[in-house]
Amino acid sequence: MTDIALQPDVTFTAIDGGITAPRGFRAAGVSCGIKASGALDLSLLVSDTMASAAGVFTTNLAKAAPVLLSRDHLAQSEGHARAVVINSGCANACTGADGRDHARVMAARTAEAVKCAASAVLVASTGVIGVKLKMANVEHGITDAAGQLSPANGAAAARAIMTTDPFPKESAVEASAGGRTFRVGGMAKGSGMIEPLMATMLGVVTTDAAVAPALLQRALKAAVDETFNAITVDGECSTNDCVFALANGASGVELTEREWPLLVASLRAACEPLAIGIVRGGEGATKLVTVRVTGAESDSDARRTARAIANSPLVKTAVHGGDPNWGRLIAVAGRAGSAFSLEKAAVRIGPITLFADGTPYDDRAPQAAAYLQGHEIDLEVDLGTGGKGQSRMWTCDLSAEYVRINADYRT
Amino acid sequence: MTDIALQPDVTFTAIDGGITAPRGFRAAGVSCGIKASGALDLSLLVSDTMASAAGVFTTNLAKAAPVLLSRDHLAQSEGHARAVVINSGCANACTGADGRDHARVMAARTAEAVKCAASAVLVASTGVIGVKLKMANVEHGITDAAGQLSPANGAAAARAIMTTDPFPKESAVEASAGGRTFRVGGMAKGSGMIEPLMATMLGVVTTDAAVAPALLQRALKAAVDETFNAITVDGECSTNDCVFALANGASGVELTEREWPLLVASLRAACEPLAIGIVRGGEGATKLVTVRVTGAESDSDARRTARAIANSPLVKTAVHGGDPNWGRLIAVAGRAGSAFSLEKAAVRIGPITLFADGTPYDDRAPQAAAYLQGHEIDLEVDLGTGGKGQSRMWTCDLSAEYVRINADYRT
Repeated sequence: MTDIALQPDVTFTAIDGGITAPRGFRAAGVSCGIKASGALDLSLLVSDTMASAAGVFTTNLAKAAPVLLSRDHLAQSEGHARAVVINSGCANACTGADGRDHARVMAARTAEAVKCAASAVLVASTGVIGVKLKMANVEHGITDAAGQLSPANGAAAARAIMTTDPFPKESAVEASAGGRTFRVGGMAKGSGMIEPLMATMLGVVTTDAAVAPALLQRALKAAVDETFNAITVDGECSTNDCVFALANGASGVELTEREWPLLVASLRAACEPLAIGIVRGGEGATKLVTVRVTGAESDSDARRTARAIANSPLVKTAVHGGDPNWGRLIAVAGRAGSAFSLEKAAVRIGPITLFADGTPYDDRAPQAAAYLQGHEIDLEVDLGTGGKGQSRMWTCDLSAEYVRINADYRT
Repeated sequence: MTDIALQPDVTFTAIDGGITAPRGFRAAGVSCGIKASGALDLSLLVSDTMASAAGVFTTNLAKAAPVLLSRDHLAQSEGHARAVVINSGCANACTGADGRDHARVMAARTAEAVKCAASAVLVASTGVIGVKLKMANVEHGITDAAGQLSPANGAAAARAIMTTDPFPKESAVEASAGGRTFRVGGMAKGSGMIEPLMATMLGVVTTDAAVAPALLQRALKAAVDETFNAITVDGECSTNDCVFALANGASGVELTEREWPLLVASLRAACEPLAIGIVRGGEGATKLVTVRVTGAESDSDARRTARAIANSPLVKTAVHGGDPNWGRLIAVAGRAGSAFSLEKAAVRIGPITLFADGTPYDDRAPQAAAYLQGHEIDLEVDLGTGGKGQSRMWTCDLSAEYVRINADYRT
């Protein structure tokens, strides 16, 4: 939970436009028949000029074909890209040699349409695992999308990457620092199979600042660690997780190593609402839960316990039911694998302390139950070690609707 | 998944009687008002003579008072016990100094009733965390139970330790080896907050074989590793988990280090049906799922992946809904942290191979969907490393009923 020291004259202002809010980006979202429903299912983002590009990818060993291809393209282009093409409705994962061919064809067709090298195209897919892409539809969709590219179509692009998401996730900020302004925009999708761990889910961040590729890569990783990597819906790290960042310099503002805090803070400003949006729109979610762990021996100890709490089905069902069952928070803290002292630990639900210094305050349960009727819930556990380690994670409640959604996702 | 080499003349025959099937044990189960429902809530087990005793305890750092006390008593008595007293309806966990006193009083009252040293009494509690025991009720219950002790009351004792369990878990076998016979009986409880990890949930195993305390402790640990430690309902390791074993020698049969395979196999024969019973009666469960992982670099790698699959909400909801979504099994195997090769991996649902050598067989999905309509489901993932490591875990499906039970456990 690093806080970043910024110059006092830095401001971030939320603006509209998502990934096309930064100058020099155009996008499109079309329907090409991958989804049986006819909903938008192909998204294209193009930078008018070659952009610095960075990516963070799933740590899952069963990486989908587009993940492997995009990683290769970033290496071949030495951190540059002109376009990002994404389909929803089919993950193109566990699809063997055909799947690898299909990802390559997606890049090639996009490169033809945009007139760039295939290695300047990043590819992502999301949807059902183990099913092959209908390539005739995809190729038609790419041509269609290329014809509709516009700075006004960020919202359509954000819709076209949704699967079980109840709403699209977009963000954009204008950063002002020392009289210079630049913009950062983003879109993301994700609702189930969400615990990105060392990587993250599907997201795209654009900026019209100029940033060298290696610096962009490091800054993206830093921003993602405190945003997309700090969320969980169901503890499932997907085969297709990735976040791309494109920086095209169209604002005329260059950010170098000296402006590291500003660079990371501006990427975080775009990523945090997307990450929280994913949790808020988590499968079956009715509440946004912020888990804070303090008093840990280290930040990584705190993160480990926060993650365990955020993934605990007993905690998540208790929050869902409005049950101030604080003993479950202690039980998770005790098993999470981090140093913990029951005698000095404390549990708070919202502003209400229910356990501290070995003493339960169960008479405050009715107050906590009333607090849990809200839709934004804070849970805090002090591990009682006396250490300064702390961490924050976002999660959602676990509802019967989550079970319903996932018991018949394909059928 | 160690298989034990036994002499060819060894047989195990299932018998009735649970913890009182072995000779020289008496039990009782009474209602003393800890549970508002008036259901049985206090269980007492007594060996007619001093027995060798062993225990395995939760690895949770937030250990309940009775866990700490029983561990101390086993040390003080150098592995001997006469009685086990267990209450349900209140976990006596996170209850501070009062809780520690209450556990001591439970042992002391039992010792008076049974006429033994307090250190010869093992104590366990199960139920809500953070609530104090009503000691007047508990003390009355101990007196009452002591008056009802009988070799016929194993079933009542097994009922009196239930919380959200839909049915009691009892087992007993008669072991015959080289013309000698002895018996092993057991009872267990558990339905939610079940992933015992290096310890286990609440269970008691009795035998009328004579076994030295240190040997009994090692054999109990070995038996528990392949039974109670190989199950999960919801990945939650409780504050109160423990399994006790008592060996009183009433059969006249002594088992020494030379009979290690027979000793472990007989304890496993009693523990395995209890462990499977816990899963079958898991909160909201409608299906028993056996997860097998093969082709791992080591047994521990296989166990890690089997555990991840057995705890995956996406796998558990797919099984619940009868959805042959094998891609979720691959996704979990890829993120579990064990060596994994997508190119050589395989997934089977029952007898049906849905993915092998990089190729999906999605046309077999209807067969797999039909198989998933059953109530005993086998899932198998070969990690594709070419190694010999394997493991087996038991879990249950995740249903909307699990959410309902846990969203208002206390309210």
